[in-house]
Formats: sequence, structure tokens, C-alpha cells
Amino acid sequence: MPKKIRLGILGGGGDSLIGVLHRVASFINDNYEITGAVFNPDHEQSLAFAREIDVPTDRIYKDFDTFVAEEMKLPAEERIQVVSVLTPNFLHFPMAHKLLENGFHVICEKPMTTTLEEAKQLQAAQEKSGSIFGLTHTYTGYPMTRQIRKMIEGGMLGNIQKVDAKYYQGWINDLIHDKEKRTTTWRLDPAKSGASCCNGDIGVHAFNMIEFTTGLRINDILCDMNSLYDDNPMDIDATTLVRFDGSKAKGVIRASQIATGEENNLSIAIYGDKGGIKWEQENPNFVYYFPESGPMQVYKPGHAYNSELSLNGTKLPPGHPEGIFDAMANIYLGVAKAVRGEAYDAGEFPTMTDGVRGMDFIEKSVASNQQGNIWVSLES
Amino acid sequence: MPKKIRLGILGGGGDSLIGVLHRVASFINDNYEITGAVFNPDHEQSLAFAREIDVPTDRIYKDFDTFVAEEMKLPAEERIQVVSVLTPNFLHFPMAHKLLENGFHVICEKPMTTTLEEAKQLQAAQEKSGSIFGLTHTYTGYPMTRQIRKMIEGGMLGNIQKVDAKYYQGWINDLIHDKEKRTTTWRLDPAKSGASCCNGDIGVHAFNMIEFTTGLRINDILCDMNSLYDDNPMDIDATTLVRFDGSKAKGVIRASQIATGEENNLSIAIYGDKGGIKWEQENPNFVYYFPESGPMQVYKPGHAYNSELSLNGTKLPPGHPEGIFDAMANIYLGVAKAVRGEAYDAGEFPTMTDGVRGMDFIEKSVASNQQGNIWVSLES
Amino acid sequence: MPKKIRLGILGGGGDSLIGVLHRVASFINDNYEITGAVFNPDHEQSLAFAREIDVPTDRIYKDFDTFVAEEMKLPAEERIQVVSVLTPNFLHFPMAHKLLENGFHVICEKPMTTTLEEAKQLQAAQEKSGSIFGLTHTYTGYPMTRQIRKMIEGGMLGNIQKVDAKYYQGWINDLIHDKEKRTTTWRLDPAKSGASCCNGDIGVHAFNMIEFTTGLRINDILCDMNSLYDDNPMDIDATTLVRFDGSKAKGVIRASQIATGEENNLSIAIYGDKGGIKWEQENPNFVYYFPESGPMQVYKPGHAYNSELSLNGTKLPPGHPEGIFDAMANIYLGVAKAVRGEAYDAGEFPTMTDGVRGMDFIEKSVASNQQGNIWVSLES
Amino acid sequence: MPKKIRLGILGGGGDSLIGVLHRVASFINDNYEITGAVFNPDHEQSLAFAREIDVPTDRIYKDFDTFVAEEMKLPAEERIQVVSVLTPNFLHFPMAHKLLENGFHVICEKPMTTTLEEAKQLQAAQEKSGSIFGLTHTYTGYPMTRQIRKMIEGGMLGNIQKVDAKYYQGWINDLIHDKEKRTTTWRLDPAKSGASCCNGDIGVHAFNMIEFTTGLRINDILCDMNSLYDDNPMDIDATTLVRFDGSKAKGVIRASQIATGEENNLSIAIYGDKGGIKWEQENPNFVYYFPESGPMQVYKPGHAYNSELSLNGTKLPPGHPEGIFDAMANIYLGVAKAVRGEAYDAGEFPTMTDGVRGMDFIEKSVASNQQGNIWVSLES
Repeated sequence: MPKKIRLGILGGGGDSLIGVLHRVASFINDNYEITGAVFNPDHEQSLAFAREIDVPTDRIYKDFDTFVAEEMKLPAEERIQVVSVLTPNFLHFPMAHKLLENGFHVICEKPMTTTLEEAKQLQAAQEKSGSIFGLTHTYTGYPMTRQIRKMIEGGMLGNIQKVDAKYYQGWINDLIHDKEKRTTTWRLDPAKSGASCCNGDIGVHAFNMIEFTTGLRINDILCDMNSLYDDNPMDIDATTLVRFDGSKAKGVIRASQIATGEENNLSIAIYGDKGGIKWEQENPNFVYYFPESGPMQVYKPGHAYNSELSLNGTKLPPGHPEGIFDAMANIYLGVAKAVRGEAYDAGEFPTMTDGVRGMDFIEKSVASNQQGNIWVSLES
Repeated sequence: MPKKIRLGILGGGGDSLIGVLHRVASFINDNYEITGAVFNPDHEQSLAFAREIDVPTDRIYKDFDTFVAEEMKLPAEERIQVVSVLTPNFLHFPMAHKLLENGFHVICEKPMTTTLEEAKQLQAAQEKSGSIFGLTHTYTGYPMTRQIRKMIEGGMLGNIQKVDAKYYQGWINDLIHDKEKRTTTWRLDPAKSGASCCNGDIGVHAFNMIEFTTGLRINDILCDMNSLYDDNPMDIDATTLVRFDGSKAKGVIRASQIATGEENNLSIAIYGDKGGIKWEQENPNFVYYFPESGPMQVYKPGHAYNSELSLNGTKLPPGHPEGIFDAMANIYLGVAKAVRGEAYDAGEFPTMTDGVRGMDFIEKSVASNQQGNIWVSLES
Repeated sequence: MPKKIRLGILGGGGDSLIGVLHRVASFINDNYEITGAVFNPDHEQSLAFAREIDVPTDRIYKDFDTFVAEEMKLPAEERIQVVSVLTPNFLHFPMAHKLLENGFHVICEKPMTTTLEEAKQLQAAQEKSGSIFGLTHTYTGYPMTRQIRKMIEGGMLGNIQKVDAKYYQGWINDLIHDKEKRTTTWRLDPAKSGASCCNGDIGVHAFNMIEFTTGLRINDILCDMNSLYDDNPMDIDATTLVRFDGSKAKGVIRASQIATGEENNLSIAIYGDKGGIKWEQENPNFVYYFPESGPMQVYKPGHAYNSELSLNGTKLPPGHPEGIFDAMANIYLGVAKAVRGEAYDAGEFPTMTDGVRGMDFIEKSVASNQQGNIWVSLES
Repeated sequence: MPKKIRLGILGGGGDSLIGVLHRVASFINDNYEITGAVFNPDHEQSLAFAREIDVPTDRIYKDFDTFVAEEMKLPAEERIQVVSVLTPNFLHFPMAHKLLENGFHVICEKPMTTTLEEAKQLQAAQEKSGSIFGLTHTYTGYPMTRQIRKMIEGGMLGNIQKVDAKYYQGWINDLIHDKEKRTTTWRLDPAKSGASCCNGDIGVHAFNMIEFTTGLRINDILCDMNSLYDDNPMDIDATTLVRFDGSKAKGVIRASQIATGEENNLSIAIYGDKGGIKWEQENPNFVYYFPESGPMQVYKPGHAYNSELSLNGTKLPPGHPEGIFDAMANIYLGVAKAVRGEAYDAGEFPTMTDGVRGMDFIEKSVASNQQGNIWVSLES
């Protein structure tokens, strides 16, 4: 294996959970070394954090523009190769855009941008640069969602005829039922957080999981959102009917942040004329496969019966649970392969295309809801 | 306890599964005695079946009209009191109607009628007669669906804000993917089977379960149906968005007969601002309750912590699984109480109102779909 | 199908749970008619109960001896054919013995007798009479325990190499931790309840389930019992190591009545060199099969892939849960076939042999424990 | 937080799974930096591996003795502080012993030594040195096993009255049923692998989990081992009855490597007079708590209702599954605190005492089995 890839990090300092997740993921397969960063808009805090986690401080830049300017002065063989963008949502687009323009590879947190228009611009920038772009739809990094993708690709479900995806959480209760909080929090302010709260934050994961696993493209959607209070403009619950390109299948995406008691319940059920399959994020190491006839089968990671794409995402023998950090690490591994020009499977990491389609889904679901729950076509 | 109630049975002879279910249910709590019947349109077969199951043959009538005519000649204290209508769907209405007109109590299989109009006529007949009418939405007879009803009634979920019900089966694959079968079977012929296949047969159970457990009324629906093949006029998959009377909650009813590998997967999840709750028909003895904070709790039948309505539906101590026969028996028990004029809880058996609303749901869901998936109001 | 079998019942009157269980089981498949009984030692109560459940009172006898004497006066074609013995434990032996001597078929509750010596005498009486004798190890009546038996018989596990059975309950806490109760209750008094409490009441079910499913015979046992308090002579917890006849397999039977929170957790795991299998009584409609390689498979009742023995025990299509009443009904059905001289599978009901071996297990486990947890051989 | 701890690694090079596990665990909380190593007995391979994972090669020593000699020449503030011993089992003792004698802190893989005598010597060496010693009973690092420990410590189970631990695997089938393999593999050779295979490798984890969670000490054991073939001297299945110090509770430890289909099924059930509790390693983020009365409760990581010890072991909000790498990282975190002299909970990492008791358990279980399954006392 070649030397480690030089990784830059934007954001994710201090107690940031997303910072821990990316940092650990970058370590897990020994592929990356954190070489530079702007962990925090406050340079002193950024430096302090670097010292705390033992990252050399000489390339801890005072701000993003300095990061780019200084790195570009370095010879290519010293320059940071991949930059992880973990900043607040509205900064994803400008940062990723500038990084791509300057030839950096990018790993970008979700949502990729705040509008579809930005997403298209970012796509154009990537096409121009030829850089690698990985979007962290982390759940596609689980060995068993990858296994589902390959099982469907291999025909084990036959023709898909029904798709049902869900992402239920209950955490927003604390905000939504408090008048003060719901009218002041940035999360429920479209100006700060984008057009959609529920579909934007989580519904889009379910949308992506459908396209990732089935290989189908969603063409048309009809969405019904709920905001519970008249003084709240944002959806905190959304049900979206979906139709596919070139398929008679229909489907539904259910997303909610007011599903009290639910933690992080992303799950998917897909039914074809030859079999059905189910998966749940909170028990990520189990896939339930229903062949047309015969008993239901439970697939687990690490077994020889799994696809190579799935097996690549498992480090230990069967029965040793791996989790969300390992899933993210698998995405980092995929990006590393791409950056090094090694062969990799298209399922190893989500790309710009996923990002554009996600933004398309978010904007169109809001449009459908606003127009009285009518069918709207995706344009991407 | 008084003497057994005299029970008449229409249909359900021979190998009829529904016949076994009702017969056993009537036995379980020692409340009924099968006194007369038309088990089969063929009188000889009807008599033979009576002999096989040791029912006296003197009141095995040659047809329905004779059944009514002869029973009406008997003095009230000998006459059959309750008649179970297990005949093909299109006969439910005329038989139940005539029975009610003649003062019999009725236990009727689902669907109650084939149209909403008939349902309303039946309702009028019952109002006039004052007879007891029980509709076998069997799943409301489980101890744990009853427990959910009482927990919600008691405020354990607070205000309902999201409802999600599902009824998935996969059995229709064998019919639908075979051109010959799908164009000839009575089930997929609206003339023989009513306006809807999927919502008519199973979606309506999910609809009923929502109203039974939450106590809310569904006012408006938007439905998207799938029939997969152009030569099939009937839905074999239907997703219905729902809105409630006097509540900001929204919900979804998912029904499918092409969910390959699913057996009889009716399930419901209800979320309020104080807690959430879930139940699955294939594991009927478990209720999952999510209080606003604190660990999820698993309720099981027979424990002192359950409501009286739930405990009434359990015969043995905790840990002895009861099933669908026991659920149906609980409904028969509720009807028995009503027939005897004993006190009973409104949750003990589904009534005419449930039947009317169910037909309303079925017709309006078809209408919504035909008109391009628009919102339609229930009228009942 | 022939006319119903004439069934007599001893015990089980009033609110008796075991009475309900047997009565419903006898009804379920339309095979039996309750023709006579001594429901209660008090004749008046017996008569009242008969009236309550609409059993004709002319053959409600004042006591057991009268029952036998009067029935024997009747011609064979009118005489009660099968008698269910549901009386207190110490009466099982004398009643069953006299019934067999007089040529009645017997369905006997568990424990069959209070000593191994009695069990052998009963066995001799049956051999002499040629009557059918069914013992209600009810859990063998579940479709899926029957399926396990047939899967093992068919070689799907290969050679058995490890057996692990459990029966955990927690209900005795209320008695055992109260000095007054534990020193006075009949259940913890060997004179009234037999040599063992925990192994006698529930461990023996696990023992029987091992022999029923594997077809192996347990030859030697080493048992460690716990009674928690010095003033309690009876086991309320027992772990028993087991060895088999003609097999290198070893196993363990774990039984406890102080497993706080457990309801009725009988479960079994069996491992062979070709596969493993698991089942749990509280989720009786699921069997987990682990082939040597390949994904775990979940078998459920009613599917064509099941054995005939299993399918015979299911009344409805897949996905309609059946429970403990249905399991008991399957045992009654098996006895009915035997009584009528029809063909039946040896797995359809437990017999005298199971009863003798169970008593052997109970007595030897107590002996092993008393002698300091040494190996003791079964003699039956 | 202070600077990273200087970590040395012995073994774990190349494709070693245990190497990946420790390396990732050391990274996860940003506490350690790999400063030196002997990854491989072949120095060239060791160097190559260091380059591959970007560890500086200047302190990649040619062998263990050189490692110690050279590091001791360095000033304390540069010297490696903690050494992880991941070498083959028989090297654990001599390496750990010499490391402790030279004042290094040690993280040691399991089994700590090959005999109890060595374990005692190691304990003496640690007492003399005052170094920190962490033993990687990894499963104690899960948030939810830690939660159980604290719940029991806090009295939520009351007095323990029954303990049942299991560790079932099926992987050894491939070796044991092949005459060639079972007579030649090092794993089944006591000279190379220690006195016990099954209890030595996995039974001891179950033993440790009992003592870790309950806080009770096991005093006496009676063990029955199975080796299946006469030409195999080693246990590949072992059931061990246990008794505790100062408690009337009894328990059982079931371990098997021939439980076909089982992957890594470590699980524990503990019952007290006030409640019961269960946990399974393959679903590590769920704890099932049965209060004396009231519904069963399911505890999950990251919730405020958990103990501080448990919450310390979770990095993300509820619903984001963490796994075995995260559990090991928690142990590394605990050792880091101890090395830095920070306050830490006794449950944060297993110690020398656990290692000595584990070896005691292993040796005595073999002794019990050899002497005909008699009770033997632990001496530690």
C-alpha cells in the first residue's frame, strides 16, 4: 500500500461529533494522515485543538482562504490531497467549489449545498476539475447496505415492484413544542437551514438509500409535509410518494422528526417479483432476505456468501459488530482508492451525482407540498 | 353465566378456513351453541358437514330464505339469536340486511358490503331493528391492540402527531404475474370483488386499526394505487395519505399484496407528544411503548399493568402465547355480552359504524386514485 | 370424518385455567364432545358448572368411582371413550390407573404420577389394557417444534453434538422470599408436590423437548439444584448436565423459577455437525435454522416447505399466529386419530413412555443433587 | 487534554486482525501515538509494515529485547509509555513480565499467560513496578455491559440469585471433524495452546463478564468438557457450574466451539430478587431489564438515563450503532486515564486481577473435568 494520503479538515474541531466521526474514519484503514486544517473559525482554538489531538500546527491555517492559498504554494507532492468539509451547511458549497476549482479532492458532509442550483454549479466545477468528490451518505458504507445493492444488481429480487423507505427520529419534539424555541432556532429557519428541515436532513438519506440499493432512479414525487404549528414554516414530518424511471414499481419515503421515541430509525424494504429484502440502520449487521419461496434468510457481514463490495467493508470475522464509524471508514477507504487511481466499485462512495439528486429531491418535495401535494418531476 | 347463545351460521362449511375460525371462536368462551346453519348452498353437503361436526341436522336449512322463514316461526326463546355471515362478499349485505330486518343479531365478516351505499342502508336497518351487529375486524380482538387503545385513551401518548399503519402481504404475486390468472380471477374483477382489491381486502384493516387505537377519525385521504399491469383494473398495492378530524396529526396507510415474502404483516406505529407505540400482528403479544424519555418498554398480555379491556382478552398467565383464534373469540365474547345486555367496553367488538367508515375509506381511496391522487373527504 | 369422540373430564371446573385449555383444545378440531364429567369434588358445583357451559347434567357424576362404575354399565357404543385427567397431581396416578384398567383411553395432565414407581405401574396397566394414553407435554404440539423433530429426523443437523434446553420462569419469587409462604405452600412441600419443584414442574418439559426433537435418549445426568433458603427443602432452580445414549453429544438443561422477569421461557438450541436450530416457546411460530454454511433461515408455520407433521398442526395460512390453545388442540387431534385407529405420526402426542422417562429424570436429578452433584443413570 | 501517549506495539503486523483492532482502538479517542514497535519477528517485514501504515521507522526494533534495551536508554519523557502485547499467546507472559520489570505500562491481549503460576508471577511483577496493566477483555468496553455493572452496583437487581452466561461459536467444526486437522493444529495441542481450548479461549470471557457485571466472585466450579474425538485431548465444548463467594446464587457458564451456526454469541442473563437483566454481544447496544413488576425495559447507549461509566463509552447520539472497535477504544481510553494519573472508574478496563482469576478459572475447570466433574475451588 502507498504512503498515507494527506488529508485536510475544515471544521470539526473541539467537541464536534461530526469531527470525531470523520477523524476516526480517516484513521481506521491507515490511509490518511491529517496534514492541515481549519478546525475552528477562531485560529487560537484551532491551534489548541490541533495540539490536543497531536496534529502538527504548522499547517493549521487561520481561515479557509489562507488554507487554499498556502497549500497551493506547496509542491504537489507535499500539498494536501483530500479535504473534508465539515463546516456549517451553508459553507459546504463555497468551500467545496473553491477546493474543486483548485484541484483538491473533496469529501463533503451532507447536505452538499443549500440549493439545487448550487449543486449543479458544484457538479460543473467537479467535471471541469476531474477531482474526486465523495459525499458522506454514511449509511451506504455499511457492509449490509452494500450487500443489498449487489444482491439486487445480481437479480435476487427480480423486477422491483414496491419500495418503502423510512427515516424516523423523535428528537425535534423538544424544539417544536416550545414556542420560543421553534421560532428562534436556526434549524427551523429556512434562511439558515435550507428549504426543508425533515426531508432536507433525513428524508434525503432515505431517498439516497433507495437509489443506492435498487439502482433505480426516482422520477416523480408527491409530498405531504407537516409543520404542526402555524408559526413554524418548516417541515418536521414528510411523506413522499415516488415513481421510478422505466419501472412500474411505486414507493414511499416516510421521514419524521416527531416520531417520539425513535432514535435514528432509517430502514428500507424492497420487494421484487423474485424476492423481498429489508434492512434497519439501528441493527446494521442484519439483512433479511425473503426468497420467492422458502424460508426467510438472514445475511450477516463477513461471510463468504457476501459480495466482494460487502466483504471489503468488514474488518473482523462474523459476529464482531461493527458500527457507524466503520461505515464512514469504508467511504473514506473508497475515496482513498479513487484518489490513488486504484480500481473501485461504484458502490464504495456516494458522489456528486448523489448530491445533485438529493438537492433535487429536497427542492421538489417542498414544491409538491406547497402546491397542494401534486406530482412534481425531478430534473436531474 | 346464562345458557349458551343460540348461534346460526351462514357459509363456512367444508374446508372453509373462515368457517373454522368462527366456529372455534364461538366455542372458546363457552358462550355459543351452533343451533342452525346453511353451511353450503348444496343442502346435502350442508347436512353432511353438520353430521361431520356433530351439529343436529334438524335446523340445517336448504337455503337462507328458508333459514329465516323457519326460524321466525319458532318462539323467541327457541329461535336462533345470533347469525354469523360467512358467505361470499356480495352476499353479506342482502343476508345481513334481511337478518336485521327480522330482528336477528348479526356477526358479519368483512367487507361488510360491496358499496358505501349498501353500508348506509345496512346501518339504517340496524338502527331500526336495535339488533347487535358485530363486524369481524379480528385484529382488534388481540389483547395488545386493546391495550394500545386504552393507553392512548389514558393519555400515555399525549396529543397524537403522527400515525403510520401498514398491511403488507406478498401472496398475490402468483396471480398478478400470470396473464391468464390476473385477467380471469374473481379477486381482480371489480364486478365480483368490489371497487378495490388491496385497500378493500387489507388496507381497510389498517384504516380501522388506526381509528380503533387512536380514537381519531380520518377525514381526508389521498391515495396512490398500483395495478402493475395495464390489463388489470384493480389495485394490488396502495399508499394512502391521511388527515384527521380536529388534529394536526398526519398519517399514512401502506397496503400491498405484492410485498414479496410478507405473510400477513399488519402493523401500526403511533406517535404523540408524550410517547410513541408500536405493534405487529405477526408478533401480537408484544407492544413497544416509547415514553417521552426513559427506556422503551415492552408490554405483554396478562400482566396486572394492563387495562381491563386487555386482560379480559387473555385466558392464561403471561408467557402462554394466544393467537388469532383467541382474538376472534374475544370479539365473539364481546357480542355475547351485548346480546345478553351485560355491560361491555366499546372496544370489545367492531360495529356497524366501523363497517360504514371502512366502505367509505375504500370507495374514496379508489376515487382519489382515479382522479390523479387528489385529496378526497370521507363522508361518514 | 366419523362422529365426535365421547370425552369425559375429571377436574377442570370453575375458573380452572387447565380446564379452559383442555376444553377449548377438545373443541378446536371438532373431534370431541364432552359427554360426562366430575368437574369438581363438590357435586353441586360440578352440576352448576355443567349447566353453565351447557354440558348435559345426566352424566355429571358425584365422584370418580361413580363415574367409572356408571359408565361401565353403559354399552360400549354409548360409553365415554376418552377421559381427560385434570385433577390435582397426586390423583393423576390412581385415576389414570383405574381408567386404564377399565379400558378407557386417557389424556393425562403432567406430572403423570408423583413417583417413578407409580409411573412404571401405570405403564404396566396401559400395556395390559391396550388403551391409548396421551400425556400433555403441550409444547410438543406446536407446529414448529414438530418441524424441528422432522428436520432432525431428516438429517438437516447431521450428528447432534450439543444440546441446550432452558425453561426459565420468575413467578416463584413471591413465594420463596416470604418466610411464611415458603414454609407453608403446598408447592414447596415434597409430601404434597413430589420430590422436586423446579425440575418436576418445568425442567421435565425441557427434558422432554430434547428427547422429542432430537430423537436421542438421555442416559446420564448430573444435577445442581438451588433452594435459596435453608428452611426450604425444594429446588426452585436446577441445572442438569446430560449425556446421551449412543452419542458423543453433551448437553445441559437449565430450569429456574427465580429467573426474575421471565414468564414462560422454554427454549431449545440443538447443534449438529451439519447445522444448528433454535426455538423459543414465547415466539412459537419461528424456528431459526443455521445450515453449516449460508445464511440463517427462519421457518414459519403453514408453508409448503414444512413437514406434514408440522402442517397438520396449522389451521390458517402463514402469518396468522396460533398459540398454546392450538398446540394443545393438536395433541387432542393426535389422540383422536389413535382412538379411531387412524394412521398418525409418532410425534402427534406424547405417550406413557414420555411420562415414565420424565419421572425418571425428576427422581434422578434429585438423587444427583442430594449425593453431591454426581452422575446418575436413568433406568427407564 | 495532554499530549498523546507514546505507544509501543509488539506483534499485530501485516494482516493481523488483532493488530487492526488495537491500532484503531488506540486512534479513536486521540490519546495514543504509535511511537515504536516490533510488528513482526522478521525485521524487514516489520519495517515494511511501519512504512505502509506511516509509522516512523526509527523505533521499529529488530526484536523485543532490543525494543526494551533501546527504549530504556531514552529519557523518560521520550520513552514509550504503554506497550501493547499482541504476540502469540505463549509470549504474553515473558514480554509483559519484562516490560513491567522495566517500568512500562502494558496493555495485554488475552490469555494473559498460559498458566496460573505465570499469572501470579506477573501479578507480583506489577505490584513491584506500580505500572498500569490493562487486559483486553474487550466486551467489558461496551457501553451497555458497563451499564449493567452500574445498574447492579446501584441495586436495580437486588440480591443476585441466578447467573447464566454463554459463549457459543461454531467455527471449530472445520477443524474438529477432520482427523488430519484436529491432530495437527496448534490450537488443539495443549503444549502450544495451554490446558484448555474452549474455556481458555472463550469460556473465560463469560467467566470474566459475570464477575465484571455482578461484582460477585466465583469461588467454586464443576466443569464438564467435551472433546468429541478420542484422539483430541482438548475441550471444544465446556459447561461449568459455578458458586459464588458470600451469595446463595448459583450459575452456569456455557461455552462451545461446536455450536454450529453461532458466530460470536457471548451473552449473559442475571437475575436478582428485584429484577433481571440480559445482554448479547452480537446486539451490543441493547440491554433488556426486567423490573420485579412492570414491563420489560430496553436500555440503549447514549441516553441520559445511563450511568456515567456507560456514557463515557459512547461517542455519538442514540441510534448510531457503535461496535467492537469502539469497545476496545473505550478500554484504551481507560488505560490512558490511568497512565496520566486521571480519575477513572474501576470498570474502565480489566486488570491484572482479572487475568489471574481467568487463568485460575481455566486451570480449575480442566482439573474438575479430569477428576470426573467434581467441585474445585478457585484459589485466587
